[in-house]
Amino acid sequence: MRLQISTWPEIEEYLKSSTGVIVPIGSTEQHGPTGLVGTDAITAEEIAWEAGKRAGILVAPTFNVGSAQHHMGFPGTMTLRPSTMIAAITDWVLSLAHHGFTRIYFLNGHGGNVAPIATAFADIYARRALDNADESFRMMQRNWYELPRAEKLYGELYPVGGGSHATAAELAVTFAAYPEKEDTRQLDPKIAPVGTITDKHHYREQFPDGRIGSDPSQARAEHGRQLIDVAADDLVKEVQAFFAG
Amino acid sequence: MRLQISTWPEIEEYLKSSTGVIVPIGSTEQHGPTGLVGTDAITAEEIAWEAGKRAGILVAPTFNVGSAQHHMGFPGTMTLRPSTMIAAITDWVLSLAHHGFTRIYFLNGHGGNVAPIATAFADIYARRALDNADESFRMMQRNWYELPRAEKLYGELYPVGGGSHATAAELAVTFAAYPEKEDTRQLDPKIAPVGTITDKHHYREQFPDGRIGSDPSQARAEHGRQLIDVAADDLVKEVQAFFAG
Amino acid sequence: MRLQISTWPEIEEYLKSSTGVIVPIGSTEQHGPTGLVGTDAITAEEIAWEAGKRAGILVAPTFNVGSAQHHMGFPGTMTLRPSTMIAAITDWVLSLAHHGFTRIYFLNGHGGNVAPIATAFADIYARRALDNADESFRMMQRNWYELPRAEKLYGELYPVGGGSHATAAELAVTFAAYPEKEDTRQLDPKIAPVGTITDKHHYREQFPDGRIGSDPSQARAEHGRQLIDVAADDLVKEVQAFFAG
Amino acid sequence: MRLQISTWPEIEEYLKSSTGVIVPIGSTEQHGPTGLVGTDAITAEEIAWEAGKRAGILVAPTFNVGSAQHHMGFPGTMTLRPSTMIAAITDWVLSLAHHGFTRIYFLNGHGGNVAPIATAFADIYARRALDNADESFRMMQRNWYELPRAEKLYGELYPVGGGSHATAAELAVTFAAYPEKEDTRQLDPKIAPVGTITDKHHYREQFPDGRIGSDPSQARAEHGRQLIDVAADDLVKEVQAFFAG
Amino acid sequence: MRLQISTWPEIEEYLKSSTGVIVPIGSTEQHGPTGLVGTDAITAEEIAWEAGKRAGILVAPTFNVGSAQHHMGFPGTMTLRPSTMIAAITDWVLSLAHHGFTRIYFLNGHGGNVAPIATAFADIYARRALDNADESFRMMQRNWYELPRAEKLYGELYPVGGGSHATAAELAVTFAAYPEKEDTRQLDPKIAPVGTITDKHHYREQFPDGRIGSDPSQARAEHGRQLIDVAADDLVKEVQAFFAG
Amino acid sequence: MRLQISTWPEIEEYLKSSTGVIVPIGSTEQHGPTGLVGTDAITAEEIAWEAGKRAGILVAPTFNVGSAQHHMGFPGTMTLRPSTMIAAITDWVLSLAHHGFTRIYFLNGHGGNVAPIATAFADIYARRALDNADESFRMMQRNWYELPRAEKLYGELYPVGGGSHATAAELAVTFAAYPEKEDTRQLDPKIAPVGTITDKHHYREQFPDGRIGSDPSQARAEHGRQLIDVAADDLVKEVQAFFAG
Repeated sequence: MRLQISTWPEIEEYLKSSTGVIVPIGSTEQHGPTGLVGTDAITAEEIAWEAGKRAGILVAPTFNVGSAQHHMGFPGTMTLRPSTMIAAITDWVLSLAHHGFTRIYFLNGHGGNVAPIATAFADIYARRALDNADESFRMMQRNWYELPRAEKLYGELYPVGGGSHATAAELAVTFAAYPEKEDTRQLDPKIAPVGTITDKHHYREQFPDGRIGSDPSQARAEHGRQLIDVAADDLVKEVQAFFAG
Repeated sequence: MRLQISTWPEIEEYLKSSTGVIVPIGSTEQHGPTGLVGTDAITAEEIAWEAGKRAGILVAPTFNVGSAQHHMGFPGTMTLRPSTMIAAITDWVLSLAHHGFTRIYFLNGHGGNVAPIATAFADIYARRALDNADESFRMMQRNWYELPRAEKLYGELYPVGGGSHATAAELAVTFAAYPEKEDTRQLDPKIAPVGTITDKHHYREQFPDGRIGSDPSQARAEHGRQLIDVAADDLVKEVQAFFAG
Repeated sequence: MRLQISTWPEIEEYLKSSTGVIVPIGSTEQHGPTGLVGTDAITAEEIAWEAGKRAGILVAPTFNVGSAQHHMGFPGTMTLRPSTMIAAITDWVLSLAHHGFTRIYFLNGHGGNVAPIATAFADIYARRALDNADESFRMMQRNWYELPRAEKLYGELYPVGGGSHATAAELAVTFAAYPEKEDTRQLDPKIAPVGTITDKHHYREQFPDGRIGSDPSQARAEHGRQLIDVAADDLVKEVQAFFAG
Repeated sequence: MRLQISTWPEIEEYLKSSTGVIVPIGSTEQHGPTGLVGTDAITAEEIAWEAGKRAGILVAPTFNVGSAQHHMGFPGTMTLRPSTMIAAITDWVLSLAHHGFTRIYFLNGHGGNVAPIATAFADIYARRALDNADESFRMMQRNWYELPRAEKLYGELYPVGGGSHATAAELAVTFAAYPEKEDTRQLDPKIAPVGTITDKHHYREQFPDGRIGSDPSQARAEHGRQLIDVAADDLVKEVQAFFAG
Repeated sequence: MRLQISTWPEIEEYLKSSTGVIVPIGSTEQHGPTGLVGTDAITAEEIAWEAGKRAGILVAPTFNVGSAQHHMGFPGTMTLRPSTMIAAITDWVLSLAHHGFTRIYFLNGHGGNVAPIATAFADIYARRALDNADESFRMMQRNWYELPRAEKLYGELYPVGGGSHATAAELAVTFAAYPEKEDTRQLDPKIAPVGTITDKHHYREQFPDGRIGSDPSQARAEHGRQLIDVAADDLVKEVQAFFAG
Repeated sequence: MRLQISTWPEIEEYLKSSTGVIVPIGSTEQHGPTGLVGTDAITAEEIAWEAGKRAGILVAPTFNVGSAQHHMGFPGTMTLRPSTMIAAITDWVLSLAHHGFTRIYFLNGHGGNVAPIATAFADIYARRALDNADESFRMMQRNWYELPRAEKLYGELYPVGGGSHATAAELAVTFAAYPEKEDTRQLDPKIAPVGTITDKHHYREQFPDGRIGSDPSQARAEHGRQLIDVAADDLVKEVQAFFAG
């Protein structure tokens, strides 16, 4: 059940049986020569939508531009300053809380979002602490690629060159969503270098085509469908436990 | 051409022939008993995508939660505080400008966004004025329903009960995108009342089911397809003139 | 009745019979070779003061520097970043609300202020929506030159070259206030060019002496007195209806 | 020479011989049962205007709402949050600096503004320090009642009951500007109590009619004219030295 | 009693008999060729700790980086933008208030902090005023070198060359804390020049070695012990009166 | 070498051979019935100071109040809103960068700071990316208890009941610094419960005396000395590699 393609009476009805919601959150940033700029948003929303469909869980719109300053050396990348991101997450969360949602679960597709999301949560909790707000209210975040079965399948599919940015797994999920964009070209080097990242200058020097540690030529739309399947399954279980907790 | 389903080398290539981009901007807010919460985002993106496809114009991700405080009395509505919205628009624009985009065109689906967008533009220009930035750089916004042929067709299709919120025209466009959500139920009253709006309390008192002045039972997916067609046509022309200006 | 030249017991007394107040809001920006930099503030306050005198309506101090980044190419122009303007309007409004004012009417003299004012209103309403504030409270804005009789008289006085910036009508009102500054010099070109505006560079290129579409040599102090008279009359009526609403 | 009643070519001309400007800054806050709410703004602007007239010094518009939270227990008081005040002063100063002004002198009428003004100056200087801005640029502030001859005359006119808020001297200056508001009523107690101030609750408990230490029944419009005369004289000297420094 | 070296049950116990706390606040900035960069923080904390020990008063952690933009021309200086400083002081104060502290006393070691601290206090009070918070709650600040006996002793010890920055007195206090840093070198000129300060460029031009008006070669650790002794004594009295007020 | 107890010429000298600096960062928050409120600041600064002494590395003042909203249910805890924390870290970093420091290493003592620190780094890098700043400049953070030999020793000393908040290891380090505060009382339960944390209400319900998973009765000052020794050793190596990188 997607919030954006529901009517308000449908949401009113939903709130009678559940006060939980999933927010897919991604990024708009380069994913190597063969990966889509929207990969992190697309992966999060595809998996969230599938879980929503299977278990009748509400899915909010996708937070589609995140914290990606280190990718700004590559055209097409968009970034929020983290201070803006915190303000925006706060408004999304408070809007939902306003209607009575008490469990907000962010399904994240981008490692660089983890700290700003955690910081936004702390900011929201801190304001509530200073204001002496007392009611029960919880937020949590999860990277989709750390859902247990997704992580396992991912390791089995790509034992070598799975990578940490522009990974075969995330590209596979986007190819499942947009099969016409499946691109299995061999890149040079086959497996991208690994290392730490700081800012955009350092990034592009170290990782000239944008990939980190990955060989995305292995990605197939079919893998993506399998990954969505197991991840959605895990997600339903975790979300239901969180909503009930 | 959609930014999110392009690779960074494709964007690099695009920038060689054009430095213009369309940003669809909408809202996540109630649209009456039969309209979708995401109507304003869906309409803007459907038309932008169609124009992008026809003329090879780049379309950024959709800015999907806007300024909708007056709809907060209805479950499902999400709003940014305008101060957050200005910060977020600023970051989106500066990200695009960073890569060399010099013409940023916002295609808007929500009247309540017009002032915050204009204010964000003024803020961006003001910082540049105070910083003595000199280069040529332009932003503009347009409501899709004010594109001339869309406005004309809209008047012809719904001479009575077109309305100003949860309009037959905007619902028709969303039904074209999601035909399974077409809902032609007669509402009571058939045509919603009209009036001015201030905050959420006042809004719900005056417009109890969320509509203003509209009879959305007239909306048909087929109308939506026609509206998308003429609006996309107008949009291509206006955007090309803006990019060239 | 002007707030700044009243004592606090007089305001306390006023609040027993009315909880409405007018805030004149203008700008400090170039108005062509013969117009005053303070035109937009002076026009708003002259008309508000006259209405206040006629009907015993309270008039707050004038918000005299507004959003004028596009005029920064001309010496003397001052501008607030819109984000500052929103913060300041918020504080003015919350201060007045604190004392029990529930109807705040901004009489505006500058088109560039319309979006930031609307955005500030939305921000104030949004915070109240998220905080679940319930009481009745309303703000509105009006450009003085759109008050019906002012607009009509303006069209009659200057059927040609009325213009949209540094207009004959606004200069006439300032000449009524400061007759020693009446300047009826013919400018070259007699009628300034028209066009759209973006930032300060673009503005000065397109409109080298600062005027847009106007022939201000037609402005006379006597016209200004007539404009103040009819505008004040309209203003009293509109404000009384708003306060009562 | 007042900025608001000058044209932009007049400001352009002025900048050829001087890059200094005076900004009157006051407050909109209660001044006891007989004093005007706008006292601190009126006193600063009357003295600045007189100095401007005598010596051809440019005077910016009046910053008329300041930091007055401690007076909010009395109707009519308006306050900026200090964080807003800092942002607004920053924008005023940067606007003037943009046109080439390098000496900005704030003539202040309200003790509660001193810290926020100093803090705004430090913020402006700090941003410049962090940005490595190198050019010469100076700001200063002065309370008009500390100009030497004003302070002396003030002591001679009111040896007893001069006070520290709603003082006889400041009321006298406003009565010179608005003689119809001269109010020489004896108050009870004749001389208001003295003490420290914190917030609005504490203030009203300690100083029930708003005055601190003053007997404003001594104030006369004629005194105000004398105070304006000597203060303007001092101001011209101090400002000319600052501009030249 | 120091907050940082207490356990939470000890603080809980403390709050049963007192709701007051001292916050030492300093700066990290150059103090001439022989003075420590941390002088203003060290002096405030040494005196606060001694008072805390003598009278069982709770001392919060030291706010150790303040407003020092004008010293940024000298390596090692660190500064907060005043807007950041206001936010941080607000959070410190609200945290303490959250636990029931109602008297927050800032013992300050740096003149440049006075305005930002006062502004932060006004901001906190202003938010409370606009929110209609009603409870009793007070903040105050004091420069340690203005405590009466400290000021007197300081004058006796250094009748000539006491100075206003990098003073003999403040260096003496730091030498009492860190005797190995006692440095009694004669500087050239023996007594530093005096003058006004604006920004970092102006500062270093006027005061090339960082001192203002001082001859710190007179400072001795033994003087510092005497200054701490009398200042702590004064502080206990003033703080106890404030807590009881 | 500590910044606060150095003179500015000493810092100038230091910068000739190194442009790196360590910033200890902690928190002021409850650490169970026997642990100090300042534990996280004390541990970070003790280890940083020791490393600084051994290898002549500069250590900045300690950032002593961090992000601790979830501990606000226990008296004595102080917290920054994360948005304030980001602003303050930004100012500290920009101040140091201003003098030519290009490697800023934060040694952290509090898990709750990790996300805000990472977010502040991303904000600083993002502003630089949007501003096109090009120079080499790096920040990194490390939790002291994840330095390899510290982590190993910690596991050997406390194979059972090491815990994750108010741990035996961190208490031991503070007891080394303040031996008079060594408290080896057995608590009830001996080992505290484990679980996830969200906000202050949830925290105190789950962990009534503040500890998570720990048996701090095992902590000894002597252990603390050993931990400081090995951690400082690791720190020197890691920092030297970072500065050279």
